[in-house]
Amino acid sequence: MLTLFHHPLFANSRFVRLAFGEYGEELALIEEKPWTRRKEFLNLNPAGTLPVLLAEGDVPIVGATVIAEYLDETRGVLKRERRLFAEDPMERAEIRRLVDWYLQKTEGEVTRHLVRERVLKPLMPGTEGGGSPDAGAIRAARSNIKQHMKYTNWLSGTRNWLSGPRLSYADLAAAGTLSVLDYLGEIDWTDYPSAKDWYTRLKSRPSFRPLLGDRVRGLTPVSHYADLDF
Amino acid sequence: MLTLFHHPLFANSRFVRLAFGEYGEELALIEEKPWTRRKEFLNLNPAGTLPVLLAEGDVPIVGATVIAEYLDETRGVLKRERRLFAEDPMERAEIRRLVDWYLQKTEGEVTRHLVRERVLKPLMPGTEGGGSPDAGAIRAARSNIKQHMKYTNWLSGTRNWLSGPRLSYADLAAAGTLSVLDYLGEIDWTDYPSAKDWYTRLKSRPSFRPLLGDRVRGLTPVSHYADLDF
Repeated sequence: MLTLFHHPLFANSRFVRLAFGEYGEELALIEEKPWTRRKEFLNLNPAGTLPVLLAEGDVPIVGATVIAEYLDETRGVLKRERRLFAEDPMERAEIRRLVDWYLQKTEGEVTRHLVRERVLKPLMPGTEGGGSPDAGAIRAARSNIKQHMKYTNWLSGTRNWLSGPRLSYADLAAAGTLSVLDYLGEIDWTDYPSAKDWYTRLKSRPSFRPLLGDRVRGLTPVSHYADLDF
Repeated sequence: MLTLFHHPLFANSRFVRLAFGEYGEELALIEEKPWTRRKEFLNLNPAGTLPVLLAEGDVPIVGATVIAEYLDETRGVLKRERRLFAEDPMERAEIRRLVDWYLQKTEGEVTRHLVRERVLKPLMPGTEGGGSPDAGAIRAARSNIKQHMKYTNWLSGTRNWLSGPRLSYADLAAAGTLSVLDYLGEIDWTDYPSAKDWYTRLKSRPSFRPLLGDRVRGLTPVSHYADLDF
Protein backbone atom coordinates (compact mmCIF):
# COMPACT_ATOMS: atom_id res chain seq x y z
CA MET A 1 0.00 0.00 0.00
CA LEU A 2 1.31 3.48 -0.86
CA THR A 3 1.54 6.22 1.77
CA LEU A 4 0.17 9.74 1.49
CA PHE A 5 1.30 12.61 3.70
CA HIS A 6 -1.75 14.82 3.80
CA HIS A 7 -3.92 17.20 5.82
CA PRO A 8 -7.64 16.35 6.14
CA LEU A 9 -8.76 19.92 5.41
CA PHE A 10 -6.35 20.74 2.59
CA ALA A 11 -8.11 20.69 -0.79
CA ASN A 12 -5.04 19.39 -2.62
CA SER A 13 -4.77 16.39 -0.26
CA ARG A 14 -8.47 15.62 -0.66
CA PHE A 15 -8.10 15.74 -4.44
CA VAL A 16 -5.42 13.02 -4.31
CA ARG A 17 -7.44 10.85 -1.91
CA LEU A 18 -10.48 11.08 -4.21
CA ALA A 19 -8.39 10.09 -7.24
CA PHE A 20 -6.97 6.97 -5.57
CA GLY A 21 -10.43 6.25 -4.17
CA GLU A 22 -11.96 6.32 -7.65
CA TYR A 23 -9.44 3.70 -8.75
CA GLY A 24 -10.22 1.61 -5.66
CA GLU A 25 -6.68 1.83 -4.35
CA GLU A 26 -6.30 2.31 -0.61
CA LEU A 27 -3.65 4.66 0.78
CA ALA A 28 -1.94 4.63 4.16
CA LEU A 29 -2.57 8.18 5.41
CA ILE A 30 -0.16 10.15 7.56
CA GLU A 31 -1.49 13.48 8.78
CA GLU A 32 1.29 16.05 8.47
CA LYS A 33 1.38 19.51 10.02
CA PRO A 34 3.63 21.22 7.48
CA TRP A 35 3.96 24.41 9.55
CA THR A 36 6.03 22.48 12.13
CA ARG A 37 8.66 21.90 9.41
CA ARG A 38 9.45 18.40 10.67
CA LYS A 39 12.93 17.34 9.57
CA GLU A 40 11.97 13.86 8.30
CA PHE A 41 9.23 15.41 6.19
CA LEU A 42 11.53 18.10 4.77
CA ASN A 43 13.89 15.32 3.70
CA LEU A 44 11.07 13.93 1.56
CA ASN A 45 10.03 17.32 0.26
CA PRO A 46 12.38 20.27 0.77
CA ALA A 47 9.54 22.60 -0.26
CA GLY A 48 7.73 21.52 2.92
CA THR A 49 4.35 21.40 1.16
CA LEU A 50 1.54 18.82 1.04
CA PRO A 51 0.59 16.37 -0.32
CA VAL A 52 3.50 13.96 -0.75
CA LEU A 53 2.99 10.40 -2.00
CA LEU A 54 5.50 7.71 -1.14
CA ALA A 55 5.29 5.72 -4.35
CA GLU A 56 6.80 2.37 -5.27
CA GLY A 57 10.24 2.05 -3.67
CA ASP A 58 9.33 4.84 -1.24
CA VAL A 59 10.19 7.47 -3.84
CA PRO A 60 8.48 10.74 -2.85
CA ILE A 61 6.16 12.22 -5.47
CA VAL A 62 5.58 15.84 -4.52
CA GLY A 63 2.49 17.94 -5.11
CA ALA A 64 -1.14 17.23 -5.99
CA THR A 65 -0.97 17.67 -9.76
CA VAL A 66 2.37 15.84 -9.99
CA ILE A 67 0.82 12.92 -8.09
CA ALA A 68 -2.26 13.00 -10.34
CA GLU A 69 -0.09 12.83 -13.47
CA TYR A 70 1.93 9.98 -11.94
CA LEU A 71 -1.28 8.14 -11.05
CA ASP A 72 -2.55 8.53 -14.59
CA GLU A 73 0.71 7.33 -16.15
CA THR A 74 0.99 4.27 -13.88
CA ARG A 75 -2.70 3.33 -13.38
CA GLY A 76 -5.07 5.62 -15.26
CA VAL A 77 -3.98 4.58 -18.74
CA LEU A 78 -5.22 1.05 -17.96
CA LYS A 79 -8.65 2.09 -16.64
CA ARG A 80 -10.44 2.55 -19.98
CA GLU A 81 -13.80 4.30 -19.42
CA ARG A 82 -13.03 4.74 -15.70
CA ARG A 83 -9.92 6.79 -16.50
CA LEU A 84 -10.03 10.22 -14.81
CA PHE A 85 -8.15 11.86 -17.67
CA ALA A 86 -8.82 12.16 -21.41
CA GLU A 87 -6.85 10.80 -24.36
CA ASP A 88 -7.00 13.89 -26.54
CA PRO A 89 -4.34 16.57 -25.82
CA MET A 90 -6.89 19.43 -26.04
CA GLU A 91 -9.27 17.70 -23.63
CA ARG A 92 -6.35 16.96 -21.32
CA ALA A 93 -5.46 20.67 -21.39
CA GLU A 94 -9.01 21.59 -20.41
CA ILE A 95 -8.96 19.14 -17.48
CA ARG A 96 -5.58 20.50 -16.34
CA ARG A 97 -6.85 24.09 -16.66
CA LEU A 98 -9.74 23.33 -14.31
CA VAL A 99 -7.57 21.42 -11.83
CA ASP A 100 -5.32 24.51 -11.68
CA TRP A 101 -8.37 26.74 -11.36
CA TYR A 102 -9.47 25.04 -8.14
CA LEU A 103 -6.11 24.03 -6.67
CA GLN A 104 -4.28 27.26 -7.52
CA LYS A 105 -6.77 30.08 -8.14
CA THR A 106 -9.57 29.16 -5.72
CA GLU A 107 -6.91 28.03 -3.25
CA GLY A 108 -5.08 31.38 -3.45
CA GLU A 109 -8.21 33.55 -3.38
CA VAL A 110 -10.41 31.61 -0.96
CA THR A 111 -9.56 28.20 0.49
CA ARG A 112 -6.05 28.79 1.85
CA HIS A 113 -7.14 31.87 3.78
CA LEU A 114 -10.24 30.35 5.35
CA VAL A 115 -8.38 27.18 6.34
CA ARG A 116 -5.48 29.16 7.80
CA GLU A 117 -7.66 31.59 9.74
CA ARG A 118 -10.43 29.25 10.85
CA VAL A 119 -8.77 25.81 11.12
CA LEU A 120 -5.03 26.17 11.59
CA LYS A 121 -4.48 29.35 13.60
CA PRO A 122 -6.60 28.19 16.54
CA LEU A 123 -4.54 24.95 16.69
CA MET A 124 -1.06 26.37 16.11
CA PRO A 125 1.16 27.62 18.90
CA GLY A 126 2.03 31.30 18.59
CA THR A 127 5.61 30.40 17.62
CA GLU A 128 4.34 28.55 14.57
CA GLY A 129 1.97 31.24 13.29
CA GLY A 130 -1.01 30.66 15.59
CA GLY A 131 -3.14 33.42 17.10
CA SER A 132 -6.37 35.25 16.55
CA PRO A 133 -7.98 34.91 13.14
CA ASP A 134 -7.57 37.91 10.84
CA ALA A 135 -11.13 39.14 10.25
CA GLY A 136 -10.07 41.08 7.15
CA ALA A 137 -8.59 37.98 5.51
CA ILE A 138 -11.76 36.01 6.24
CA ARG A 139 -13.96 38.76 4.84
CA ALA A 140 -11.89 39.01 1.63
CA ALA A 141 -11.94 35.23 1.11
CA ARG A 142 -15.71 35.10 1.69
CA SER A 143 -16.36 37.78 -0.88
CA ASN A 144 -14.27 35.81 -3.39
CA ILE A 145 -16.25 32.59 -2.88
CA LYS A 146 -19.16 33.88 -4.98
CA GLN A 147 -17.13 34.13 -8.19
CA HIS A 148 -15.88 30.56 -7.80
CA MET A 149 -19.34 29.19 -6.98
CA LYS A 150 -20.84 31.04 -9.94
CA TYR A 151 -18.21 29.56 -12.23
CA THR A 152 -18.80 26.06 -10.82
CA ASN A 153 -22.54 26.52 -11.24
CA TRP A 154 -22.05 27.62 -14.84
CA LEU A 155 -19.74 24.70 -15.65
CA SER A 156 -22.03 22.12 -14.06
CA GLY A 157 -25.07 23.67 -15.74
CA THR A 158 -23.57 23.45 -19.23
CA ARG A 159 -21.67 20.15 -19.02
CA ASN A 160 -22.48 16.75 -17.57
CA TRP A 161 -19.29 16.80 -15.50
CA LEU A 162 -17.10 19.89 -15.09
CA SER A 163 -14.68 19.19 -17.94
CA GLY A 164 -17.12 17.44 -20.28
CA PRO A 165 -19.17 14.27 -20.64
CA ARG A 166 -17.08 12.15 -18.24
CA LEU A 167 -15.98 12.35 -14.63
CA SER A 168 -12.38 13.62 -14.55
CA TYR A 169 -9.68 15.08 -12.35
CA ALA A 170 -11.44 18.45 -12.82
CA ASP A 171 -14.43 17.23 -10.79
CA LEU A 172 -12.19 15.83 -8.06
CA ALA A 173 -10.17 19.04 -7.76
CA ALA A 174 -13.36 21.07 -7.54
CA ALA A 175 -14.96 18.64 -5.08
CA GLY A 176 -11.83 18.52 -2.91
CA THR A 177 -11.98 22.31 -2.71
CA LEU A 178 -15.72 22.77 -2.23
CA SER A 179 -15.88 19.98 0.36
CA VAL A 180 -13.42 21.91 2.55
CA LEU A 181 -15.46 25.10 2.20
CA ASP A 182 -18.64 23.10 2.88
CA TYR A 183 -17.14 21.56 6.04
CA LEU A 184 -16.60 25.14 7.22
CA GLY A 185 -20.20 26.08 6.35
CA GLU A 186 -19.01 28.70 3.86
CA ILE A 187 -21.21 27.70 0.92
CA ASP A 188 -24.83 28.71 0.53
CA TRP A 189 -25.91 26.02 -1.93
CA THR A 190 -29.39 27.45 -2.53
CA ASP A 191 -27.85 30.09 -4.82
CA TYR A 192 -26.14 27.48 -7.01
CA PRO A 193 -28.62 24.73 -7.99
CA SER A 194 -26.56 23.16 -10.80
CA ALA A 195 -23.45 23.07 -8.62
CA LYS A 196 -25.51 21.53 -5.84
CA ASP A 197 -26.81 18.80 -8.14
CA TRP A 198 -23.29 18.08 -9.39
CA TYR A 199 -21.88 18.03 -5.84
CA THR A 200 -24.67 15.70 -4.67
CA ARG A 201 -23.74 13.22 -7.39
CA LEU A 202 -20.09 13.33 -6.37
CA LYS A 203 -20.82 13.14 -2.65
CA SER A 204 -22.71 9.87 -3.20
CA ARG A 205 -19.70 8.12 -4.72
CA PRO A 206 -17.84 5.59 -2.57
CA SER A 207 -14.59 7.54 -3.08
CA PHE A 208 -16.13 10.43 -1.15
CA ARG A 209 -17.12 8.49 1.96
CA PRO A 210 -13.77 8.75 3.81
CA LEU A 211 -13.78 12.55 3.36
CA LEU A 212 -17.25 12.82 4.86
CA GLY A 213 -15.91 11.06 7.96
CA ASP A 214 -13.01 13.50 8.45
CA ARG A 215 -13.05 15.64 11.55
CA VAL A 216 -10.56 18.23 12.79
CA ARG A 217 -10.03 19.03 16.44
CA GLY A 218 -12.15 21.84 17.83
CA LEU A 219 -14.19 22.39 14.68
CA THR A 220 -17.27 20.31 13.92
CA PRO A 221 -18.50 20.50 10.34
CA VAL A 222 -21.69 22.27 9.28
CA SER A 223 -24.73 20.06 10.06
CA HIS A 224 -25.42 19.01 6.42
CA TYR A 225 -21.75 18.22 5.71
CA ALA A 226 -22.12 14.43 5.51
CA ASP A 227 -25.77 14.36 4.33
CA LEU A 228 -26.21 12.96 0.86
CA ASP A 229 -29.53 14.80 0.67
CA PHE A 230 -28.81 18.37 1.82
CA MET B 1 2.36 29.77 -36.43
CA LEU B 2 0.82 29.55 -32.95
CA THR B 3 0.23 32.64 -30.84
CA LEU B 4 1.34 33.18 -27.24
CA PHE B 5 -0.14 35.83 -24.98
CA HIS B 6 2.72 36.62 -22.62
CA HIS B 7 4.57 39.22 -20.60
CA PRO B 8 8.33 39.65 -21.26
CA LEU B 9 9.21 39.73 -17.54
CA PHE B 10 6.93 36.95 -16.32
CA ALA B 11 8.88 33.77 -15.56
CA ASN B 12 6.04 31.48 -16.65
CA SER B 13 5.85 33.18 -20.08
CA ARG B 14 9.63 32.91 -20.52
CA PHE B 15 9.47 29.21 -19.65
CA VAL B 16 7.02 28.60 -22.51
CA ARG B 17 9.04 30.67 -24.99
CA LEU B 18 12.18 28.69 -24.11
CA ALA B 19 10.37 25.38 -24.57
CA PHE B 20 9.08 26.27 -28.04
CA GLY B 21 12.50 27.76 -28.83
CA GLU B 22 14.24 24.48 -27.95
CA TYR B 23 11.98 22.70 -30.44
CA GLY B 24 12.73 25.34 -33.05
CA GLU B 25 9.09 26.41 -33.33
CA GLU B 26 8.48 30.12 -33.65
CA LEU B 27 5.57 31.75 -31.82
CA ALA B 28 3.69 34.92 -32.65
CA LEU B 29 3.96 36.91 -29.41
CA ILE B 30 1.27 39.24 -28.08
CA GLU B 31 2.26 41.20 -24.99
CA GLU B 32 -0.67 41.18 -22.60
CA LYS B 33 -1.15 43.39 -19.52
CA PRO B 34 -3.36 41.07 -17.48
CA TRP B 35 -4.07 43.71 -14.83
CA THR B 36 -6.11 45.69 -17.36
CA ARG B 37 -8.54 42.71 -17.55
CA ARG B 38 -9.13 43.19 -21.26
CA LYS B 39 -12.44 41.63 -22.28
CA GLU B 40 -11.14 39.76 -25.36
CA PHE B 41 -8.41 38.22 -23.24
CA LEU B 42 -10.81 37.20 -20.46
CA ASN B 43 -12.88 35.42 -23.12
CA LEU B 44 -9.84 33.27 -23.85
CA ASN B 45 -8.97 32.75 -20.20
CA PRO B 46 -11.58 33.68 -17.57
CA ALA B 47 -8.86 33.35 -14.90
CA GLY B 48 -7.17 36.38 -16.50
CA THR B 49 -3.69 34.89 -16.06
CA LEU B 50 -0.70 34.47 -18.37
CA PRO B 51 0.53 32.71 -20.42
CA VAL B 52 -2.16 31.58 -22.87
CA LEU B 53 -1.31 29.70 -26.05
CA LEU B 54 -3.64 29.82 -29.02
CA ALA B 55 -3.10 26.29 -30.28
CA GLU B 56 -4.28 24.61 -33.48
CA GLY B 57 -7.79 25.85 -34.34
CA ASP B 58 -7.23 28.86 -32.05
CA VAL B 59 -8.15 26.77 -28.99
CA PRO B 60 -6.75 28.52 -25.90
CA ILE B 61 -4.39 26.43 -23.76
CA VAL B 62 -4.15 28.14 -20.39
CA GLY B 63 -1.19 28.21 -18.02
CA ALA B 64 2.52 27.47 -18.32
CA THR B 65 2.55 23.86 -17.12
CA VAL B 66 -0.62 23.04 -19.07
CA ILE B 67 1.03 24.42 -22.21
CA ALA B 68 4.22 22.46 -21.47
CA GLU B 69 2.27 19.20 -21.14
CA TYR B 70 0.40 19.97 -24.35
CA LEU B 71 3.66 20.73 -26.14
CA ASP B 72 5.11 17.43 -24.95
CA GLU B 73 2.06 15.44 -26.01
CA THR B 74 1.87 17.00 -29.47
CA ARG B 75 5.58 17.61 -30.26
CA GLY B 76 7.89 16.39 -27.50
CA VAL B 77 7.09 12.70 -27.89
CA LEU B 78 8.56 12.85 -31.41
CA LYS B 79 11.81 14.60 -30.47
CA ARG B 80 13.78 11.57 -29.21
CA GLU B 81 16.94 12.75 -27.39
CA ARG B 82 15.90 16.40 -27.79
CA ARG B 83 12.70 15.79 -25.81
CA LEU B 84 12.45 18.12 -22.81
CA PHE B 85 10.62 15.54 -20.72
CA ALA B 86 11.49 11.98 -19.63
CA GLU B 87 9.82 8.66 -20.48
CA ASP B 88 9.86 7.18 -16.99
CA PRO B 89 6.98 8.26 -14.70
CA MET B 90 9.31 8.79 -11.69
CA GLU B 91 11.66 10.97 -13.74
CA ARG B 92 8.67 12.84 -15.11
CA ALA B 93 7.49 13.46 -11.53
CA GLU B 94 10.92 14.88 -10.62
CA ILE B 95 10.87 17.23 -13.61
CA ARG B 96 7.34 18.36 -12.73
CA ARG B 97 8.32 18.87 -9.08
CA LEU B 98 11.12 21.22 -10.12
CA VAL B 99 8.96 23.09 -12.62
CA ASP B 100 6.46 23.69 -9.79
CA TRP B 101 9.32 24.69 -7.48
CA TYR B 102 10.34 27.57 -9.72
CA LEU B 103 6.98 28.57 -11.23
CA GLN B 104 4.97 28.23 -8.01
CA LYS B 105 7.25 28.39 -4.98
CA THR B 106 9.98 30.77 -6.20
CA GLU B 107 7.27 32.76 -7.97
CA GLY B 108 5.20 33.10 -4.77
CA GLU B 109 8.13 33.85 -2.48
CA VAL B 110 10.33 35.98 -4.73
CA THR B 111 9.66 36.64 -8.41
CA ARG B 112 6.04 37.82 -8.34
CA HIS B 113 6.76 40.41 -5.65
CA LEU B 114 9.88 41.88 -7.26
CA VAL B 115 8.21 42.06 -10.68
CA ARG B 116 5.09 43.67 -9.23
CA GLU B 117 6.94 46.23 -7.12
CA ARG B 118 9.82 47.06 -9.46
CA VAL B 119 8.42 46.50 -12.97
CA LEU B 120 4.64 46.75 -12.95
CA LYS B 121 3.72 49.31 -10.30
CA PRO B 122 5.73 52.11 -11.91
CA LEU B 123 3.94 51.44 -15.22
CA MET B 124 0.40 50.91 -13.93
CA PRO B 125 -2.09 53.72 -13.43
CA GLY B 126 -3.23 54.07 -9.81
CA THR B 127 -6.65 52.70 -10.74
CA GLU B 128 -5.07 49.40 -11.83
CA GLY B 129 -2.85 48.89 -8.79
CA GLY B 130 0.03 51.22 -9.63
CA GLY B 131 1.84 53.43 -7.15
CA SER B 132 4.95 53.50 -5.01
CA PRO B 133 6.79 50.23 -4.55
CA ASP B 134 6.29 48.53 -1.18
CA ALA B 135 9.76 48.46 0.38
CA GLY B 136 8.76 45.74 2.84
CA ALA B 137 7.63 43.42 0.05
CA ILE B 138 10.89 44.00 -1.82
CA ARG B 139 12.96 43.32 1.31
CA ALA B 140 11.07 40.08 2.06
CA ALA B 141 11.44 38.82 -1.51
CA ARG B 142 15.16 39.65 -1.53
CA SER B 143 15.77 37.72 1.66
CA ASN B 144 13.99 34.72 0.12
CA ILE B 145 16.18 34.73 -3.01
CA LYS B 146 19.11 33.15 -1.13
CA GLN B 147 17.27 29.91 -0.35
CA HIS B 148 16.27 29.49 -4.00
CA MET B 149 19.77 30.28 -5.29
CA LYS B 150 21.31 27.85 -2.79
CA TYR B 151 18.94 25.14 -3.93
CA THR B 152 19.70 25.86 -7.60
CA ASN B 153 23.42 25.83 -6.82
CA TRP B 154 23.07 22.49 -5.04
CA LEU B 155 21.05 20.94 -7.88
CA SER B 156 23.43 22.15 -10.58
CA GLY B 157 26.43 21.03 -8.52
CA THR B 158 25.17 17.47 -8.12
CA ARG B 159 23.53 16.87 -11.52
CA ASN B 160 24.49 17.67 -15.08
CA TRP B 161 21.20 19.47 -15.65
CA LEU B 162 18.76 20.33 -12.87
CA SER B 163 16.58 17.22 -13.09
CA GLY B 164 19.28 14.76 -14.16
CA PRO B 165 21.57 13.94 -17.08
CA ARG B 166 19.50 15.68 -19.77
CA LEU B 167 18.19 19.17 -20.38
CA SER B 168 14.52 19.24 -19.38
CA TYR B 169 11.58 21.49 -18.59
CA ALA B 170 13.10 21.83 -15.09
CA ASP B 171 16.03 23.79 -16.51
CA LEU B 172 13.76 26.01 -18.58
CA ALA B 173 11.48 26.79 -15.62
CA ALA B 174 14.49 27.67 -13.48
CA ALA B 175 16.11 29.69 -16.26
CA GLY B 176 12.88 31.54 -17.01
CA THR B 177 12.72 32.52 -13.34
CA LEU B 178 16.37 33.37 -12.76
CA SER B 179 16.58 35.35 -16.01
CA VAL B 180 13.86 37.67 -14.73
CA LEU B 181 15.67 38.14 -11.42
CA ASP B 182 18.94 38.64 -13.30
CA TYR B 183 17.37 41.31 -15.55
CA LEU B 184 16.51 43.14 -12.33
CA GLY B 185 20.07 42.74 -11.00
CA GLU B 186 18.81 40.75 -8.01
CA ILE B 187 21.27 37.84 -8.26
CA ASP B 188 24.82 37.94 -6.96
CA TRP B 189 26.25 35.07 -9.01
CA THR B 190 29.63 35.03 -7.26
CA ASP B 191 28.04 33.21 -4.31
CA TYR B 192 26.67 30.40 -6.51
CA PRO B 193 29.41 29.11 -8.84
CA SER B 194 27.64 25.89 -9.93
CA ALA B 195 24.43 27.75 -10.65
CA LYS B 196 26.42 30.32 -12.61
CA ASP B 197 28.07 27.63 -14.71
CA TRP B 198 24.70 26.00 -15.39
CA TYR B 199 23.09 29.35 -16.26
CA THR B 200 25.96 30.25 -18.59
CA ARG B 201 25.40 27.01 -20.52
CA LEU B 202 21.69 27.77 -20.84
CA LYS B 203 22.23 31.40 -21.74
CA SER B 204 24.38 30.35 -24.71
CA ARG B 205 21.62 28.29 -26.28
CA PRO B 206 19.82 29.75 -29.33
CA SER B 207 16.47 29.39 -27.53
CA PHE B 208 17.66 31.98 -25.01
CA ARG B 209 18.61 34.69 -27.47
CA PRO B 210 15.14 36.31 -27.82
CA LEU B 211 14.90 36.63 -24.01
CA LEU B 212 18.23 38.41 -23.84
CA GLY B 213 16.86 40.98 -26.27
CA ASP B 214 13.76 41.73 -24.19
CA ARG B 215 13.44 45.21 -22.71
CA VAL B 216 10.66 46.73 -20.62
CA ARG B 217 9.86 50.42 -20.62
CA GLY B 218 11.66 52.49 -18.01
CA LEU B 219 13.85 49.69 -16.70
CA THR B 220 17.14 48.78 -18.37
CA PRO B 221 18.55 45.40 -17.38
CA VAL B 222 21.65 44.96 -15.25
CA SER B 223 24.80 45.51 -17.37
CA HIS B 224 25.78 41.80 -17.60
CA TYR B 225 22.23 40.66 -18.45
CA ALA B 226 22.91 39.74 -22.09
CA ASP B 227 26.62 38.85 -21.68
CA LEU B 228 27.37 35.21 -22.31
CA ASP B 229 30.56 35.65 -20.26
CA PHE B 230 29.51 37.42 -17.07
